[in-house]
Amino acid sequence: MLGVMEEREFDVIVIGAGPAGEVCAGRLAERELEVALVEQHLVGGECSFYACMPSKALLRPGELLAEVARVPGARETVSGELDAQVVLRRRDEVIHGRDDSGQLPWLEERGIELFRGQAAFEAERSVRVGSELMRARRAVVVATGTAAAIPPIDGLGEARPWTNREATTAAEVPERLLVLGGGVVGVELAQAWSSLGSSVTVVEAEERILFNEEPFASAEISAGLDRAGVELRTGARAAGASRGEGGRVSLELEGGERLRGDELLVAVGRRPRTEELFLERAGAEAGAAGYLEVDDQLRVGGSDWLYAIGDVNGRSLLTHMGKYQARIAADHILGEDVTATGDKGGSPRVVFTDPQLAAVGLTLAKAQEQGIEARAVDVSTAGNAGASFHGRDMPGTSRIVVDEQRHVIVGASFVGPEVAESLHAATIAVVAEVPLERLWHAVPAFPTRNEVWLKLLETYGL
Amino acid sequence: MLGVMEEREFDVIVIGAGPAGEVCAGRLAERELEVALVEQHLVGGECSFYACMPSKALLRPGELLAEVARVPGARETVSGELDAQVVLRRRDEVIHGRDDSGQLPWLEERGIELFRGQAAFEAERSVRVGSELMRARRAVVVATGTAAAIPPIDGLGEARPWTNREATTAAEVPERLLVLGGGVVGVELAQAWSSLGSSVTVVEAEERILFNEEPFASAEISAGLDRAGVELRTGARAAGASRGEGGRVSLELEGGERLRGDELLVAVGRRPRTEELFLERAGAEAGAAGYLEVDDQLRVGGSDWLYAIGDVNGRSLLTHMGKYQARIAADHILGEDVTATGDKGGSPRVVFTDPQLAAVGLTLAKAQEQGIEARAVDVSTAGNAGASFHGRDMPGTSRIVVDEQRHVIVGASFVGPEVAESLHAATIAVVAEVPLERLWHAVPAFPTRNEVWLKLLETYGL
Repeated sequence: MLGVMEEREFDVIVIGAGPAGEVCAGRLAERELEVALVEQHLVGGECSFYACMPSKALLRPGELLAEVARVPGARETVSGELDAQVVLRRRDEVIHGRDDSGQLPWLEERGIELFRGQAAFEAERSVRVGSELMRARRAVVVATGTAAAIPPIDGLGEARPWTNREATTAAEVPERLLVLGGGVVGVELAQAWSSLGSSVTVVEAEERILFNEEPFASAEISAGLDRAGVELRTGARAAGASRGEGGRVSLELEGGERLRGDELLVAVGRRPRTEELFLERAGAEAGAAGYLEVDDQLRVGGSDWLYAIGDVNGRSLLTHMGKYQARIAADHILGEDVTATGDKGGSPRVVFTDPQLAAVGLTLAKAQEQGIEARAVDVSTAGNAGASFHGRDMPGTSRIVVDEQRHVIVGASFVGPEVAESLHAATIAVVAEVPLERLWHAVPAFPTRNEVWLKLLETYGL
Repeated sequence: MLGVMEEREFDVIVIGAGPAGEVCAGRLAERELEVALVEQHLVGGECSFYACMPSKALLRPGELLAEVARVPGARETVSGELDAQVVLRRRDEVIHGRDDSGQLPWLEERGIELFRGQAAFEAERSVRVGSELMRARRAVVVATGTAAAIPPIDGLGEARPWTNREATTAAEVPERLLVLGGGVVGVELAQAWSSLGSSVTVVEAEERILFNEEPFASAEISAGLDRAGVELRTGARAAGASRGEGGRVSLELEGGERLRGDELLVAVGRRPRTEELFLERAGAEAGAAGYLEVDDQLRVGGSDWLYAIGDVNGRSLLTHMGKYQARIAADHILGEDVTATGDKGGSPRVVFTDPQLAAVGLTLAKAQEQGIEARAVDVSTAGNAGASFHGRDMPGTSRIVVDEQRHVIVGASFVGPEVAESLHAATIAVVAEVPLERLWHAVPAFPTRNEVWLKLLETYGL
């Protein structure tokens, strides 16, 4: 370390300018704190450039045309196929050609100072970025996120697989796409590229895709992918991978079968970006699988100055929950008495396939694991008048999981076309622990698909 | 009255087989009561054949194509215009060609006995339908609904105007359609027929359409109708109407201007269907404007046997609220201790235009009228990441009205494309009186348009 290096002081140093880091920095700066924000790649983060945003841009046109095909009077107006080049151009607009300059005025307006480069702790409260050394008066917030995990499969690294980054930004539609992993990233991108013309095969080691969700959700989204022409290989484990002379990839399954494709997307999980932070110099250490374990104020290991928010703490790998944690951490740094409760018992989550899954709280299995006297109530998502106009005739189940002792909903899952916007009703019911007897008086409007709530509560016995 | 007429006994007689009557009869029959259901026209009622259902069928294709036009990649696939004949055929499917036989098995399965004809009270608990005389052991439930009101405008009756019945079931698209009344029925049907090719002019006496809603909702839906080519004449009063030799109608405005059209839809309000019931023989009388006033158990004038549910009690002229009242009344007849609270302070309601209005509870003005220390918080409905994919670039405002003393939301209005499904979150928040501080922990999923909730609460100051 250079002895003459000037150490600059800030109230708070936020490391990582993804959604969580940006929200935290912004909230602190709006309350007049001096904030430094460090980013080694793009301001806006994985979500804006390589995940939610481009993925949704790729999915939306196909989703919409699937709905058009279900509506007589509208479907007759469609003559063409989805134009993949137009969709890819729109995706490029959404990610601003991977140029983050559009994000900078927002920082400037708030007086947030941006440092570009890799951050490394020098000591407690002390962070270096290249030649800059800075010190935090109040707090350092780690918000470095996660990257795609590459599993130790023979030859996989050398086969130059796609991660979410390549799969969301590719300039051409691969003729054949192999997807390793049937979680959210795998199934959304399988749906997206399939809608753009790829022949897609998903390989999932578990017996069903979306293994953490309700079994009916796995089955119904599998059926949707099947209708879209996506091949699903569940209970199939990859044993090796290679890229041949012609540039094509080959994925070998246990048992010896070989699948071939033009590209191979690896979507089997995430790893936290903590390696280069030199956390040990801050007196901290990463926990299981490298995640920074935090308490309900987002503090790392009981520290009074070190916070971790977003993916990097492993609590809930979702943009909206990272932003939520950012608000809680910022308020705590500002001296408020706050506790993160909104991610207990299962964060709200949407899988943007066709049909979609929108879920919050616990699945039936997880509620039972937790010892809750849980009862599941299931109805057809399309079993109401609203569904004769929207998402018509598309199979899908809606479930609430009721805690029979407390008479509140502890989980809800909706499968159907474009059910994402219906989720927040369930999120409020779960998080606010609204008693069923009170929910009964919240009347869903006719003829909207919200009447699924009426059917659920009637079926429960109200 | 014939002395030898046999009087049949039922536990409950329900007069009117619209949504409210059907739900009430069904709920009672499922609890083993003997139920008679009387209907003078179609089982399923105004809603199924002449209102919500055909109206939504007419609106949905146009709404969907408007959304397609906002989504690059999808819009390029559309080459044709909306095919009005296909839409009208689909509408005919939705209303089953005005044949109610599809509704009968549902009644039969529940052992509900259907009497077709006009019901008239003979005495307390005693009802005649044609030659049948029946007596109710427990209760009579009046659920006869409303019909279009025809205002006393010179020549209007003779001009053979459309009501909602003709406007939802017409077999041809009128070249020019005049709409008298800019309430929900008027604006929805203006939007629908305009999307099918009509030139539509709406005449509204008030200074704005949707006069009971937030002023921004009126303005934004006016702008949407304007973009769709609908002409709005607000602050314009009709002075006379006539139908000429060629079958065309003429509407004269105060001031002398004449508007001409092929059809004239009158949508200036409703009147309760109570005239032929001979309520006085039941010891009851209709209240203001003919509506049957009820208490929170839906009993008429403190009676222990006479109930009125749905439109006919004037409490809330909405199908879903009629069905809600039906459940409450049925439960009360079954001896349960229930109170209708879900329609206090403004029922949930949706106007299915493009953009839509989805609202619940009080507007700011109504909250202030009630003496509530009310604060309105406004954000752009499109001001979130989800709106870059859905309802993109479409102007619209979202508002919550906060009771500053109780820290709860007493009203919410959302204007935007397809916001109907977002309403139930607000309905739960309002009806369950969830404190703002608790709502703050209900995290909207990214990137959905539910994030409008985040913006609303941030703007409030959370």
